[in-house]
Amino acid sequence: MRVLGVDPGSQATGYGLIERVDGRVRHVRHGVLRPPTGADLAERLRFLHAGLLAIVQTEGPEVAVVERVFLAANPRSALVLGQARGAILASLAAGGVRVSELAARQVKKAVTGMGGADKAQMQTMVKRLLALDAPPPSDAADALALALTFAQAGPLAELAVGRGRARRRNGRRAMTALVTGRAR
Amino acid sequence: MRVLGVDPGSQATGYGLIERVDGRVRHVRHGVLRPPTGADLAERLRFLHAGLLAIVQTEGPEVAVVERVFLAANPRSALVLGQARGAILASLAAGGVRVSELAARQVKKAVTGMGGADKAQMQTMVKRLLALDAPPPSDAADALALALTFAQAGPLAELAVGRGRARRRNGRRAMTALVTGRAR
Repeated sequence: MRVLGVDPGSQATGYGLIERVDGRVRHVRHGVLRPPTGADLAERLRFLHAGLLAIVQTEGPEVAVVERVFLAANPRSALVLGQARGAILASLAAGGVRVSELAARQVKKAVTGMGGADKAQMQTMVKRLLALDAPPPSDAADALALALTFAQAGPLAELAVGRGRARRRNGRRAMTALVTGRAR
Repeated sequence: MRVLGVDPGSQATGYGLIERVDGRVRHVRHGVLRPPTGADLAERLRFLHAGLLAIVQTEGPEVAVVERVFLAANPRSALVLGQARGAILASLAAGGVRVSELAARQVKKAVTGMGGADKAQMQTMVKRLLALDAPPPSDAADALALALTFAQAGPLAELAVGRGRARRRNGRRAMTALVTGRAR
């Protein structure tokens, strides 16, 4: 099963593709889509839509995972994020990919053990878990982390937010077992 | 010149196409795109993107006009509007249409003479100006009004907000002359 994580943003949309085979996860590719800075809004959104659709059509993921939005800071930033998100989600559905959402806190917890992990910690852990040569750019690291969390927990992960310590501890152990290939 | 007005919304996206030939405007078509209510968010956004792209490719407008967003009421509604807007704008750019924005207040003023016109007043005036048999649905009326205002004023309309009474009066006279075909 191939899982595509996507971190939508109007300036930079990160993506990260992983593959799960026989209970092990391997890195396929990651990157950041950056619309031309001089282009107008509609053209930048078209760029994101077309860019992601090309990746979906080339790589054929079964599932895409995006961050769930709880509360944006203010109406202006919510609108800007919403616009990027709208282009991205339309593109994923156009590519025939099922879309799932995960909470940022849950992803950070699953990947680093800390719900409040910062960007550098996420990059370091994603690099280590996927045995990459270098830490991915922050947007791509977040996208890979979304994909990893989904691949580890499956669709049930969507229900798992805030279920107490034992569950988090088990989740962390499961993640390490998954990426190292140890028996669960 | 063909001008497509679009009023983006996640439940209902109105569109209205008019044509300007020899200084006169005629109605081409209008309607409302309603994504299937049972579908998930990504699928509804794909529906809007694909639906509008089909209209653009069939009708070949030179310009699309959408409402400028100043300040959404709250982050949640801004996010929802932003998502619909993102899918719509990406679609317009994918169809090769130039996208222009107009303020709602300016459109209401141009069409009804009142910046605070309500939905029913907009529907009535759009019906009258375009000599339609019946008032269009509200979302489509707003879309047609965007197209009419753009066709009347051209790209300069974007600069014309709040320029005083004389300008508004002239604008109203110009709109009536335009749609009735009287010399300006």
